Amino acid sequence: MTATGTDDERLAALTRVGLSWRPSGQLALRGPLLRLAESCDRALARLAGIWDAEEERHPAALRATDVQPSGYLRSFPHQATFMARLHPEESNLDNFLDGPVLGPDGHVALTELAPVTEILTPAACYHLYSGHRGETLTGPRCLTTRNTCFRQEERYVPLRRLSSFTMREIVCIGSPAETVAFLTKARTALDMFCELIDLPLDWRVATDPFFRPESSPGHLLQRLEPVKHEGVYGSDLAISSLNRHHDHFGAAFGLTRDDRPAHSCCLAFGIERWLYAITDRHGTEPADWPALEQHAADVRTTLWGGAA
Amino acid sequence: MTATGTDDERLAALTRVGLSWRPSGQLALRGPLLRLAESCDRALARLAGIWDAEEERHPAALRATDVQPSGYLRSFPHQATFMARLHPEESNLDNFLDGPVLGPDGHVALTELAPVTEILTPAACYHLYSGHRGETLTGPRCLTTRNTCFRQEERYVPLRRLSSFTMREIVCIGSPAETVAFLTKARTALDMFCELIDLPLDWRVATDPFFRPESSPGHLLQRLEPVKHEGVYGSDLAISSLNRHHDHFGAAFGLTRDDRPAHSCCLAFGIERWLYAITDRHGTEPADWPALEQHAADVRTTLWGGAA
Repeated sequence: MTATGTDDERLAALTRVGLSWRPSGQLALRGPLLRLAESCDRALARLAGIWDAEEERHPAALRATDVQPSGYLRSFPHQATFMARLHPEESNLDNFLDGPVLGPDGHVALTELAPVTEILTPAACYHLYSGHRGETLTGPRCLTTRNTCFRQEERYVPLRRLSSFTMREIVCIGSPAETVAFLTKARTALDMFCELIDLPLDWRVATDPFFRPESSPGHLLQRLEPVKHEGVYGSDLAISSLNRHHDHFGAAFGLTRDDRPAHSCCLAFGIERWLYAITDRHGTEPADWPALEQHAADVRTTLWGGAA
Repeated sequence: MTATGTDDERLAALTRVGLSWRPSGQLALRGPLLRLAESCDRALARLAGIWDAEEERHPAALRATDVQPSGYLRSFPHQATFMARLHPEESNLDNFLDGPVLGPDGHVALTELAPVTEILTPAACYHLYSGHRGETLTGPRCLTTRNTCFRQEERYVPLRRLSSFTMREIVCIGSPAETVAFLTKARTALDMFCELIDLPLDWRVATDPFFRPESSPGHLLQRLEPVKHEGVYGSDLAISSLNRHHDHFGAAFGLTRDDRPAHSCCLAFGIERWLYAITDRHGTEPADWPALEQHAADVRTTLWGGAA
């Protein structure tokens, strides 16, 4: 959504159904769009019911020591977002108050920070691997969670690229065969769901946005074998992704299956991008929006059960 | 919840119904406790229906420039939490990767930070005043919102004192009389609700935790006239608060009513603390927990309507 006339009209129409937007990347919702967002998340949680995935709710941030085994900070330092606080020493706080607090450029005039120990959630599923660390699985384990996620961006676009956004994920941890079975069924489920709600979705191979990809072992691996597929709406908006982690997280967090590091994979959804896609496809009149939860329940009924 | 035997037993019982706890302040929920948390929030949102309050959903952080008019950073620098990112200059990111990334003490080995422009939500209602800035009201306006909130703490206690926590708020903006009427009815509503769910609640006058209160104009004002009342469970756990802001936010954000700065007030709930209180009062057996949503609906039916 750039500043063309058409996009301005679209933004005005979205504003009438509950969108508030600040060009610095902050999005608020109320009214019909808020109800659509909540309905969308409930629908995706119903899809998670295909695998009887257990719901978990995690905090806003991860301890850096809990993220470290995954290699996140080395792979994505350019996207990482930290929870920072002023050093609580009183003299430091006095120094802060003696200063301008906020500069004319809108930047906080920080003084010394306390040691930074927490990373604001980069993707909802990180919490699940560290949260289940050390577990021995006797079958596939499916989990689902929703969280606010944070990534540094170069620019912000309403409903498409935000300073913080909402991610729903469905994760399967198990044997290689179990995770591959999950991915296959997940793609079927999403194709069925998008067919029912009349939302065209194209799948394409993608790689994660590694920093310095040419020298990143992770990127090299992803180029050798596709592990990430994005479900794209329109020509360029990834509203979902299917990710195969092999034993990356299982090995990092001591999760085992059959005496070996467990494999894992996830199906991820960016809720605000779904709002973009649904309102782009079906317009901004709430009466024209599809019955997301009912259609998701139908998909669940059709595909429920099976090993993974 | 300190490390006495009884508290250990309590933590173990809570863990069995879905609590995961890290002593560094991160709390996760699943199973019965997660369902109780969601039910609790829905119940409190129903109480907001007494005033037909409109629901809004806001992002995780506020722009510092949107917080500044309220004086937050000057009043609470010791609690403020910032969203920090590495400066995106490639050489800076290379320097970060050339370092240890994470020190042996679990502290992130930061290099230069990008300018800090966003403050992680200190209280859910801040978004509402800046989000409605400049509006002219022709009657009382009631809003409700839920957000993850962040405050620096000296120590962490399960369900009572967390690195991030969930706050539901109901806000009324209007004339002095309208906001006082809201506060009166809000207290009645909460007393009725707590009576129905058998949760003893004591009200006490409180002040906000200003930094250097002796020299804070805000603190002085609060001592001259009580503007904050906390609903306390047990001897010392504030699970709700009623706050009268007079025209503090109305004047700061150009909200007017009858050609004068609007008054505002809020009723705030800390969801995790409600979980503590409910499980302390009713035990950790889900079958023994009260029907929160039904009782809230009854309160709404009884008290619905009226000017504020």
